[in-house]
Amino acid sequence: MTDPSRGAGRSGRGPGRRPGPTETREEILAAARDLFAEKGFDGTSLRAIARAAGVDPTLVHHFFGNKEGVFVEALRFPMDPAVVLSRVASVPRDQAGELMVRTFLEVWRDEERRSPLLAMLRSAMTNERAAALLREFITSVLFSRAGKAVDAPPLRIQAAAGQLIGLMILRHVVRVEPLASASEDELVDIVAPTIQRCLAS
Amino acid sequence: MTDPSRGAGRSGRGPGRRPGPTETREEILAAARDLFAEKGFDGTSLRAIARAAGVDPTLVHHFFGNKEGVFVEALRFPMDPAVVLSRVASVPRDQAGELMVRTFLEVWRDEERRSPLLAMLRSAMTNERAAALLREFITSVLFSRAGKAVDAPPLRIQAAAGQLIGLMILRHVVRVEPLASASEDELVDIVAPTIQRCLAS
Repeated sequence: MTDPSRGAGRSGRGPGRRPGPTETREEILAAARDLFAEKGFDGTSLRAIARAAGVDPTLVHHFFGNKEGVFVEALRFPMDPAVVLSRVASVPRDQAGELMVRTFLEVWRDEERRSPLLAMLRSAMTNERAAALLREFITSVLFSRAGKAVDAPPLRIQAAAGQLIGLMILRHVVRVEPLASASEDELVDIVAPTIQRCLAS
Repeated sequence: MTDPSRGAGRSGRGPGRRPGPTETREEILAAARDLFAEKGFDGTSLRAIARAAGVDPTLVHHFFGNKEGVFVEALRFPMDPAVVLSRVASVPRDQAGELMVRTFLEVWRDEERRSPLLAMLRSAMTNERAAALLREFITSVLFSRAGKAVDAPPLRIQAAAGQLIGLMILRHVVRVEPLASASEDELVDIVAPTIQRCLAS
């Protein structure tokens, strides 16, 4: 719901001064996080986010492009799916698997980029609402985009995603050896053919 | 620590009557759960479990065979790794991947058998001690046994396990479509070659 006092209240400034762009951006993200948590990805519109943040929808569009863009920022998703997938689509078809694996390994390498992914997965495993949010986001965005980028059936893309998720859990959560300490090249050797096979048929 | 009053105290019976086999078995499992949670898999001996349950070690051996057997029962692990792996080792090498995938899909099909697996994974994702317990169990038991049964390097076995874990999460936790509703045969078609490739090289 629109709450005109929200901007001023949150940033602790008095009335009569307009919030700066950074504060407005943060207000929008805070409103978006609340709405995504409450209504899910599909149930949240860019217009509703703008309304909850008390700003004009064109401003949300200006900052984040579209609803995916807000989601990616709001949940600190560590990579922009559009960027990753256009990279994957730009290499020769027989290198798509390797590029995909290398991209994920690179994101996981950095704890700051890895932890929002793990947090999202952890929430989904313990909370049905969080599971629904993740389900809707990956269905609406990741898998449908990935399907267009690589022209593979959804079930195969999801099997590939399963391989990457399981690998991340064993490497960074359970930290089983030798997987936890294996080099990225060793993992690419083993896993890239799986992803390639999933994406290529 | 040994607590002679434990058997009688837990089951609420008066002194002077010996607990029956079912009660003793449950006492041992309760003691084992406590010890595994506190000391991890590697830090817990069959002898320590017997001591904590106030029984003779031969009795623990009699009920559960070995420490793995106690663990599998105590944490309601839905399959006996020894049985699964001897099945896998008994089929022609080029069918090992398919048999492994079918075995897991069969276990997951039944919510009662699936939920202890998910509970274990969920705990590991939210609690470092639970992660260590799972790490030690799968390192000491699953992967070293699997390595002997199928003669594949640990890193490949772990990549295969990653594929299965990720598949389980997407199918039964995130429940993304079409993966959540796909038939077991469809999943075998996609995933068995991955597992086969991991186990066979």
